[in-house]
Amino acid sequence: MHNPTELQKLIENAIPKIAYPANPANLYEPIKYIMSLGGKRIRPVMVLMATELFTDEVTKALDVALAIETFHNFTLVHDDIMDNAPLRRGKQTVHEKWGVNNAILSGDVMMVESNKHLSKVDIGVLKPVLDTFNQTAQGVCEGQQLDMEFETRDDVSIEEYIEMIRLKTAVLLGGAMKLGAIVGGADEKNAELLYQFGENLGVAFQLQDDILDVYGDPEKFGKQVGGDIIANKKTFLHLKAKALIEPTETDILLGEHESATQKVEAVTALYNNYNIKELAQTQMKQYLAKAYQGLDMLEVVENRKTYLRELTKQIMEREN
Amino acid sequence: MHNPTELQKLIENAIPKIAYPANPANLYEPIKYIMSLGGKRIRPVMVLMATELFTDEVTKALDVALAIETFHNFTLVHDDIMDNAPLRRGKQTVHEKWGVNNAILSGDVMMVESNKHLSKVDIGVLKPVLDTFNQTAQGVCEGQQLDMEFETRDDVSIEEYIEMIRLKTAVLLGGAMKLGAIVGGADEKNAELLYQFGENLGVAFQLQDDILDVYGDPEKFGKQVGGDIIANKKTFLHLKAKALIEPTETDILLGEHESATQKVEAVTALYNNYNIKELAQTQMKQYLAKAYQGLDMLEVVENRKTYLRELTKQIMEREN
Repeated sequence: MHNPTELQKLIENAIPKIAYPANPANLYEPIKYIMSLGGKRIRPVMVLMATELFTDEVTKALDVALAIETFHNFTLVHDDIMDNAPLRRGKQTVHEKWGVNNAILSGDVMMVESNKHLSKVDIGVLKPVLDTFNQTAQGVCEGQQLDMEFETRDDVSIEEYIEMIRLKTAVLLGGAMKLGAIVGGADEKNAELLYQFGENLGVAFQLQDDILDVYGDPEKFGKQVGGDIIANKKTFLHLKAKALIEPTETDILLGEHESATQKVEAVTALYNNYNIKELAQTQMKQYLAKAYQGLDMLEVVENRKTYLRELTKQIMEREN
Repeated sequence: MHNPTELQKLIENAIPKIAYPANPANLYEPIKYIMSLGGKRIRPVMVLMATELFTDEVTKALDVALAIETFHNFTLVHDDIMDNAPLRRGKQTVHEKWGVNNAILSGDVMMVESNKHLSKVDIGVLKPVLDTFNQTAQGVCEGQQLDMEFETRDDVSIEEYIEMIRLKTAVLLGGAMKLGAIVGGADEKNAELLYQFGENLGVAFQLQDDILDVYGDPEKFGKQVGGDIIANKKTFLHLKAKALIEPTETDILLGEHESATQKVEAVTALYNNYNIKELAQTQMKQYLAKAYQGLDMLEVVENRKTYLRELTKQIMEREN
């Protein structure tokens, strides 16, 4: 078995070896670019880790891991177009570097590349692998659609928000776990338990993201602390505050401010008054507890679960 | 066996029965919209027709036919964004009706829908079906990339143009035939012959399109005759003329004109002087002859090929 760092290395080594056609260069260069920008490779590591719960032949799952990582990066390329984002991991986004049309098309072909990776799995698991992947991919698209629609809605409930992040973020973590389990030879019950583990962890992960965006250590966070506040993003913190504050305080949350810095300070102070951080942490911990419950129920000897518990801890204790 | 019209009806009846999720409505409504705009359904009909060369169980191929039609419509949605096109089949394009971001995302989920259709084929043919589909989809994306790049290049050769239309248009017709053949139980040799048939027919089809755009009957063409000339599109006709004309005539082809009408008239007259229509037809007929050769070599009793010959004739004699 391999620890999270070893599995991450396995992924990092495999990515530059993916053989894309040489031409048209402008179709494939953006794929190599976005795939090389790094990140923690959490999703493909989860695939491999789920496989290793059931078999020592972890390389059997490498193609599925690359499919998941390619799909994830495809969503980043298209989401960045929709969000008009100039930067991704501190570098130019694909549409900034190659133009929007090129970015749409390179994203499209990344979806094909994901499917090519997937189709290499053992024929015995091909059908459930495809079904799981397609359901996952569909959920992620639905989540992105809801996220876009929330931008122009002012009646988003916390339940709707949780459902959105479940689709946009958590389903892919669930899918990664389930796919790894299937390739590893898990039965349906255990594959489903791992899906639930991944999905619950995914919701906790995103809630943690929301908290970090406001309360992260500026030295370690990597992005501007308060970015969500400046962008009026309807995060869990925003929606919870909106539900709790006095009518007289609405302007602090939704009104104009002198500067971005002043806005971050004022809204953070408002959050502090209503214990929003703690409320978000309570919610986050509930999802994390559900994730661990699923892991406890998994019919795998306890010592095989060690690295997955370690990865979960790393993910939830991250500072960026 | 079914004639082309019966197979088209089979497709037309199946499309409204595809079950998309109800929500998010704005993600799935565009799919229903574009899929209902009609068209000749040539590609899914080709899938079914290829299957019927080998088996009477044509419905076995219905999911693959829907996958191909969904994929084709996905490319239309994304291509229309890239081309900034306001109309498709005389109606508003998806990005005009729902906005660019929504159109990107609905297109993305159409790719997932295509893969969901595909995954329903018999497990015995699933792997070759996926491989053929992925190779086809990748080729289509490459063709679109080349098409975009040609817009800003002024050194496109006729060979490059043929390679572009092979990828952008012909590969999908080849893929449709091969997929239908695989589902019908064809061996590799016959499946490959049908791929070649479809690909050669596809190149002939696009050359015919180029000719119709200039020489079509305005009453029957459905679009503005001369649209390619107005848009300075580097079609076979344009590139052939560019290669043959005197330097003094370059301005007619590439320079400014008083009006769109005058430009169409002047360029058409130039084409006429150099017999460009006939040269294009000669090229087209060479590809068509190659297509028929493949059909002749196909190891299927001749009377099973009748409807495919009929469809080919319909496609090549179309006026819009």
